[in-house]
Amino acid sequence: MPGVPPARYAYLGPEGTFTEQALRTLPAAAKADLQPCSTVTLALDAVRGGEADGAVVPIENSVEGSVPVTLDELATGEPLMITREMTVPIAFSLLARPGTSADDVRRVATHPHAAAQTRRWVALHLPRAEVVHTSSTAQAAFMLTREDREWDAAISAPVAAEHYRLATLATGIADNPDALTRFVLVSRPGPPPPPTGADKTSLVAFMREDHPGALMEILEQLAMRGVNMTRIESRPTGAALGNYCFSVDCEGHVDDARVGEALMGLRRVCADVRFLGSYERHDGIAPTIRPGTSDREFLDAAAWLARLRHGS
Amino acid sequence: MPGVPPARYAYLGPEGTFTEQALRTLPAAAKADLQPCSTVTLALDAVRGGEADGAVVPIENSVEGSVPVTLDELATGEPLMITREMTVPIAFSLLARPGTSADDVRRVATHPHAAAQTRRWVALHLPRAEVVHTSSTAQAAFMLTREDREWDAAISAPVAAEHYRLATLATGIADNPDALTRFVLVSRPGPPPPPTGADKTSLVAFMREDHPGALMEILEQLAMRGVNMTRIESRPTGAALGNYCFSVDCEGHVDDARVGEALMGLRRVCADVRFLGSYERHDGIAPTIRPGTSDREFLDAAAWLARLRHGS
Amino acid sequence: MPGVPPARYAYLGPEGTFTEQALRTLPAAAKADLQPCSTVTLALDAVRGGEADGAVVPIENSVEGSVPVTLDELATGEPLMITREMTVPIAFSLLARPGTSADDVRRVATHPHAAAQTRRWVALHLPRAEVVHTSSTAQAAFMLTREDREWDAAISAPVAAEHYRLATLATGIADNPDALTRFVLVSRPGPPPPPTGADKTSLVAFMREDHPGALMEILEQLAMRGVNMTRIESRPTGAALGNYCFSVDCEGHVDDARVGEALMGLRRVCADVRFLGSYERHDGIAPTIRPGTSDREFLDAAAWLARLRHGS
Amino acid sequence: MPGVPPARYAYLGPEGTFTEQALRTLPAAAKADLQPCSTVTLALDAVRGGEADGAVVPIENSVEGSVPVTLDELATGEPLMITREMTVPIAFSLLARPGTSADDVRRVATHPHAAAQTRRWVALHLPRAEVVHTSSTAQAAFMLTREDREWDAAISAPVAAEHYRLATLATGIADNPDALTRFVLVSRPGPPPPPTGADKTSLVAFMREDHPGALMEILEQLAMRGVNMTRIESRPTGAALGNYCFSVDCEGHVDDARVGEALMGLRRVCADVRFLGSYERHDGIAPTIRPGTSDREFLDAAAWLARLRHGS
Repeated sequence: MPGVPPARYAYLGPEGTFTEQALRTLPAAAKADLQPCSTVTLALDAVRGGEADGAVVPIENSVEGSVPVTLDELATGEPLMITREMTVPIAFSLLARPGTSADDVRRVATHPHAAAQTRRWVALHLPRAEVVHTSSTAQAAFMLTREDREWDAAISAPVAAEHYRLATLATGIADNPDALTRFVLVSRPGPPPPPTGADKTSLVAFMREDHPGALMEILEQLAMRGVNMTRIESRPTGAALGNYCFSVDCEGHVDDARVGEALMGLRRVCADVRFLGSYERHDGIAPTIRPGTSDREFLDAAAWLARLRHGS
Repeated sequence: MPGVPPARYAYLGPEGTFTEQALRTLPAAAKADLQPCSTVTLALDAVRGGEADGAVVPIENSVEGSVPVTLDELATGEPLMITREMTVPIAFSLLARPGTSADDVRRVATHPHAAAQTRRWVALHLPRAEVVHTSSTAQAAFMLTREDREWDAAISAPVAAEHYRLATLATGIADNPDALTRFVLVSRPGPPPPPTGADKTSLVAFMREDHPGALMEILEQLAMRGVNMTRIESRPTGAALGNYCFSVDCEGHVDDARVGEALMGLRRVCADVRFLGSYERHDGIAPTIRPGTSDREFLDAAAWLARLRHGS
Repeated sequence: MPGVPPARYAYLGPEGTFTEQALRTLPAAAKADLQPCSTVTLALDAVRGGEADGAVVPIENSVEGSVPVTLDELATGEPLMITREMTVPIAFSLLARPGTSADDVRRVATHPHAAAQTRRWVALHLPRAEVVHTSSTAQAAFMLTREDREWDAAISAPVAAEHYRLATLATGIADNPDALTRFVLVSRPGPPPPPTGADKTSLVAFMREDHPGALMEILEQLAMRGVNMTRIESRPTGAALGNYCFSVDCEGHVDDARVGEALMGLRRVCADVRFLGSYERHDGIAPTIRPGTSDREFLDAAAWLARLRHGS
Repeated sequence: MPGVPPARYAYLGPEGTFTEQALRTLPAAAKADLQPCSTVTLALDAVRGGEADGAVVPIENSVEGSVPVTLDELATGEPLMITREMTVPIAFSLLARPGTSADDVRRVATHPHAAAQTRRWVALHLPRAEVVHTSSTAQAAFMLTREDREWDAAISAPVAAEHYRLATLATGIADNPDALTRFVLVSRPGPPPPPTGADKTSLVAFMREDHPGALMEILEQLAMRGVNMTRIESRPTGAALGNYCFSVDCEGHVDDARVGEALMGLRRVCADVRFLGSYERHDGIAPTIRPGTSDREFLDAAAWLARLRHGS
């Protein structure tokens, strides 16, 4: 389309990571300008600063849990909004320079999350190897190409073997073969995408005070309106040990009456609530609507209340 | 005011009962047409049928609890609305024909509620007397004036002594000297009186199904919005043992945001909710507004939600 | 059995009431000494004083709800224990002296509870009749036999027609043809009857303070241990409007682990708890045991805790 | 004491980390054999395998939240027990080879948690520097001593400057100057240390099924018995996105009656509960005992229940 510049997407790089793989599942990515960033913070700041229209960053995986820096970046600073989620299956290979055998591996490098997801495999197959952490699985592989390399093998995405001309000593070494990583597409705030019937809403709730029942009060605001949570993470707010906010994903869209009333309830009982967006679920699973919580029933109740108040 | 007919008030008679005393606390009663009725049902039906503009009936006393027939009449049939409450201290006297002494009393008559409220006094001072139930305390006194009387004494309001020319054998014989009876003024449905800042709202909630947590769900709809209950009574619905509705008084006015949202919540989770009115409390006690439940906070949350939904 | 005196049962009389009918469903009643009492209080005091071994009194019916005097008598004074429950179907007839027709009935007498349960029938078929309250349905019938009778008809148990040689003008006049009254057999405190697998436990919980969430706390003590309530009634404690205790029936036996733990929980959070007994349900319905609340699971958890505490 | 070998403590090394600093706060560490390990897993496995009597590992800091690998290691595998906690203030310095100035820093290395805790300082003072992750802050400093170093500066504990003869370019660069890291001393299971009156209990609760209210049920088991939580973390169980266990710290000791009953409750409603130990709080804060939850009240309730069951 002449005159329309291509979309610009920042992502957690370098090239060849799972994040790029997630980004490429977006149809719009085919013609877009893709910008690898060295940290989640830089990728999100590119959106905040207007250098990118969106950013794709990892937010959760089924083995290691949340990606803390993503949760914290979304919870603080200039607001951003999640407009889409996507998942990528986790698959790790053990890569080394050609000629290296598993017995030669004394030090193996990888990103801490990948280390966690291959812990049992490494303990079993490389019992004497020291594990070294790098800032990405791709960096662990790249460094093997250098003369001054400090490790003998890397645990990386399979695609890195080809990219860096390395030998694959083992494939499928993730402890849990069904593990997924969840990624989100983040934009500047704006109108949420319209409801699809199978949506998720993300938010961060900051407790008003650190009293024993505070978390239960937050959960009740959702449960009472039939809004199911699909994820909850406590995150320290940085003030002191014991001060938390809660990062929550729940079923439904901000336009749903039950979700709207629950959000208003949270807004009233919490010190602060940050809305992080409503977006289509990656798995297309529609929520079960509990009796009494459909949009129709909310409308009926509102009409009834209006009649009571006006005496008609 | 020429041309305006006086208000017509039905009440639970006969003349000289506590109910008449409650009715006379209304300024409007001074010039009104007062109609004693022999039952609560008849008094309320006079309003339903248009023969009276309002009815005053007892609804609760601090010793015997609710007045079942009033609760049931308000919960079923043609809807009515409570527009005012008033309380009257309970005071009972033991009355007899002149010349009778306490030792002569073999049978003493009174209304079942009065019997319950003088139970301990009677057991102590008239240990051998049989207690007979009458349809009102005034009737118990009136019957003493007849030749074919079947009892020797009556437990009645003090005023009945003068009315029926009886001797007062004892005064202040209520077991609890601080007991009050609460009365309500009932009208046909219409706009509720405006909020005064110290209001009460009455309703009847019919459970959707008789499942174990149903009552807790109902209570949570109120508690979650910071709406305090001042009275709850379970009433059988008449269908079977174990089928109940709940008659509830709570603090606040239907125009209060927190009360409105709680009512809508009840409407959605209950099989039915009957709104019985919002009216000024007899004791003028204003509710404590819990943080997060003021009208201002509800408005703020609604404005915030509108901004989220429109992306502005 | 020579030498063993027959059991002595007090009951709410006079003879011919539904209560006698309930008492006669007890096998032991056939050879027992039955003592009609004119009030519930007198029947229960006969047990307290040792003049009777047990008393049968009404406690609830499906139309009028609880029998307040029974609940209050069991909640206060010298403790008593419920050891059995039984139900009797409600059936009312309209009785009059032979020769009287329905058109002649200007005043009809009955007990207030019976009046409540025939309210609609009377409004429809005797629209101009005044309803007079008596202390029992039997008394209403008996008085018709006297010359100085003050009413023309009585609403009574069908058996009263024969007893007092009255004509039956109408039968089956209860508004709800399926209504039941529940009666209990009350003894002095002692070991509860052994569990049958389909038991009920009755108690009265007095709130520690009249704070908004007090009732929810009480309900949670039961719900948390999977103990289902089958009846809850708020009863004023007589101190002031708004001061309540709660009369509760729940599924299960005091010997059940989940019921025991719930009772201990209530004992701790309430100002007082009065245990009124565990006894077989009249309908033989066994409770549904929620996962995690069986005796076996309680035992397993206790053994586990002991291991944790001893480090073994 | 002749013949008694010194205690052996494993810890997350290398020497000079905050963990060693935490370990040295133990009086027993002065004469003990201290074994630095390269990972939390290795330190804990040294205890499991009997090569060490205890291990000190980080478990939480007030900025980054939990240390996932510690939580996961304690939640799975051969059981271990926490017997003590200690805290160390976080303080970071920017270190470089002598002669380097802040303007020369293009790449700065540190552990990911330290990176997170100095994020804002780095963005402000080293806006163009790339942040590289290492497996410990000590390693980041050590590598600066080598010729083939790949970064220009390290963010480390202040003590590392002396250890590796580096220049300190800046001190106190943590974004939150009050941040603490919490460490735990872990042993093989055994009898917990006796209650001190200011204790904490740690556990992991695995949900029975992933149903909406499961987390609330878990929280209620604690809240109902007046047991306050001081930390809760959701951790994925590794099975699938959305499957969680909860890592919980709460006030009180397993020997406290309320804690014991809460643990038994969790044991019954959860798929599994792993008890991680009761130990003295680092800050000596005694819990507030809610009315009805003291040991004395539990004992009284148990005695009362025994009387009810035996009818005495």
